[in-house]
Amino acid sequence: MSASGDKVGLEGEFRELDLPLLIRRAGMAEWDDGVVRILDRRELPLAEKYLECRSVEDVATAVEEMAIQGAFSLSIAAGYGLALAVHDGADQLSDLRSAASRLATTRPTGLALQRMLDACLANAESAVVAGEGPRKAIVATVDHAAATLARQGWKTGQRAAALLEDGMSILTHCFPDRSYVYLLMEAAKAGKKLHVVASETRPYLQGARLTSLCALQAGFKASVITDGMGASLMRRGDIDAFVTAADRVCMDGTVCNKIGTYQHALAANAHDIPYYALRQSGPDRESATEADVEIEYRAGDELLYCGGERTAPHGVEGIYPCFDCTPAELIHAIVTDRGVFEPSKINTYFANEPFVTEAIL
Amino acid sequence: MSASGDKVGLEGEFRELDLPLLIRRAGMAEWDDGVVRILDRRELPLAEKYLECRSVEDVATAVEEMAIQGAFSLSIAAGYGLALAVHDGADQLSDLRSAASRLATTRPTGLALQRMLDACLANAESAVVAGEGPRKAIVATVDHAAATLARQGWKTGQRAAALLEDGMSILTHCFPDRSYVYLLMEAAKAGKKLHVVASETRPYLQGARLTSLCALQAGFKASVITDGMGASLMRRGDIDAFVTAADRVCMDGTVCNKIGTYQHALAANAHDIPYYALRQSGPDRESATEADVEIEYRAGDELLYCGGERTAPHGVEGIYPCFDCTPAELIHAIVTDRGVFEPSKINTYFANEPFVTEAIL
Repeated sequence: MSASGDKVGLEGEFRELDLPLLIRRAGMAEWDDGVVRILDRRELPLAEKYLECRSVEDVATAVEEMAIQGAFSLSIAAGYGLALAVHDGADQLSDLRSAASRLATTRPTGLALQRMLDACLANAESAVVAGEGPRKAIVATVDHAAATLARQGWKTGQRAAALLEDGMSILTHCFPDRSYVYLLMEAAKAGKKLHVVASETRPYLQGARLTSLCALQAGFKASVITDGMGASLMRRGDIDAFVTAADRVCMDGTVCNKIGTYQHALAANAHDIPYYALRQSGPDRESATEADVEIEYRAGDELLYCGGERTAPHGVEGIYPCFDCTPAELIHAIVTDRGVFEPSKINTYFANEPFVTEAIL
Repeated sequence: MSASGDKVGLEGEFRELDLPLLIRRAGMAEWDDGVVRILDRRELPLAEKYLECRSVEDVATAVEEMAIQGAFSLSIAAGYGLALAVHDGADQLSDLRSAASRLATTRPTGLALQRMLDACLANAESAVVAGEGPRKAIVATVDHAAATLARQGWKTGQRAAALLEDGMSILTHCFPDRSYVYLLMEAAKAGKKLHVVASETRPYLQGARLTSLCALQAGFKASVITDGMGASLMRRGDIDAFVTAADRVCMDGTVCNKIGTYQHALAANAHDIPYYALRQSGPDRESATEADVEIEYRAGDELLYCGGERTAPHGVEGIYPCFDCTPAELIHAIVTDRGVFEPSKINTYFANEPFVTEAIL
């Protein structure tokens, strides 16, 4: 946990301490000798608090209850969490498999989580076969994945920054995670001043809490709007580009992302404003179309409270699909580590040369 | 303040106690012998609390701080508030004019407020000329306006209910006030079951707090969504119509309403879902186009808190235009007391026979 001032970021390009907190090692999840330390994003931006998880259930609960979010970041937490299931007993592999199942159920929509757990399990099994301890193998797997993700995210952010011009106002929705934060770092490095407009993203307010924080930490002006204001700002000429992450990209160019993305994409299209979706690791080969995407529904009651206080009358139901799908025709480009793609050609991603080798997620 | 069980509602059609609270006399503002009693909508739905305003400043503050909202409802509160400025001194007319100016500055976008104050001032001046007390004249003016508004709202709601079919899911945004609530009452009377889907309408959550409450009280199923979910629900086929109020309608059919309306209207249009705007008193003759509409900007900090707790980092700016404009081509029909109009023909409203006479607002 020592944070030497000249430590290099996970991506290998910036000084760790120059990066916004959320893409530093500590800003996601870290393995610390039998403890998984997770930055509690629910407390941001007002407090920087860390959860110390000592059991698989601690980590699963932290993921379910949104202490950490973002498909890749929560996969890192879950991967380290699996290492907590290692013990010296005879049935440790079967217990590891049970733990992986528990962790996989926490958030079903992203695929990274399952892939991380699969890779950790496979390496743990190999270690056991080789007579080695599986914990070290699991931690090394996650460490490798975290560095790989950071490299991909950085390259994606660099490509996206090149699409934007000095002085632009960029609307985003939810917290678009590492690719977006690297976009900001690369734009700043290139001397481009951007105005980050974050839609707040109810009910968890990732836009207000996380995206705007990263924008400030990267040195930019940051504004927050409600989730209903984007189209109106576009109509007034106040938005130059719409940029989001993508929790999943289908082979036909459909983007699955935080609910609310589709609404902004429709509005951007109606106003001839480009929509760039950042998906550092390209499309999902197993998702031909959105029919292959399972949309997570969270408890409707989560919408009916604001700051802990009930806002809707009893008897009212909240409807809370977590994600929505935006069809390819509304997207200007999908930006990845391997290049910038027209959405209808995103299936050519795999024909391009890999940017990172041995990517897990 | 006696609420006899068979008292008839302001609109003259339903029993007062059968109406949802927000369109009863007590659910807006009442004059009670030197006190303006205002239902504090910020406390709904969890508590039914009333402010007792004894000065013009009390009423102005209640309006500014959103204890009462909706262009017509707040005009009633402000009108009664003007009666609080009456005194026996020599300069009472000049003091009344000052009080009207103070009250007019509370919310600049709706026109009803200014018209109510103008009518009250004119009648107060006539009363003084006739040697009568101006207070009685002001209260009578507001009483008349409140009843007229209710009649118009009821007729508008009745016309709108006729456009909807049994079993429909109706998305609305913000609290569309009396016309919408009468729509629900008339639909219920006609035996139509509607599912009311309310977008919560940050930051004041009128959708979650008020619209869903009225829907329950009118006997319907009510659901709440965040302001970013409407388009996605439309894409999934879960919404059959979009219905809102209109704070102002321009002579070219542009609808000015709570920020967020435009975004839903764009989405409805993209999915061939009809958008009905309710504007009980027709277009504003003085607003040819949206260039004539002054959009109120509220303090951006109002967006940066949730349930009293700061959610965005310090250094971030909130952008809070209160209203947006939706062009005529996105609107299926504008429903008024005098009929249902194609937006491009809303200027023929005035050629139709009046439904109420001596309308003030």
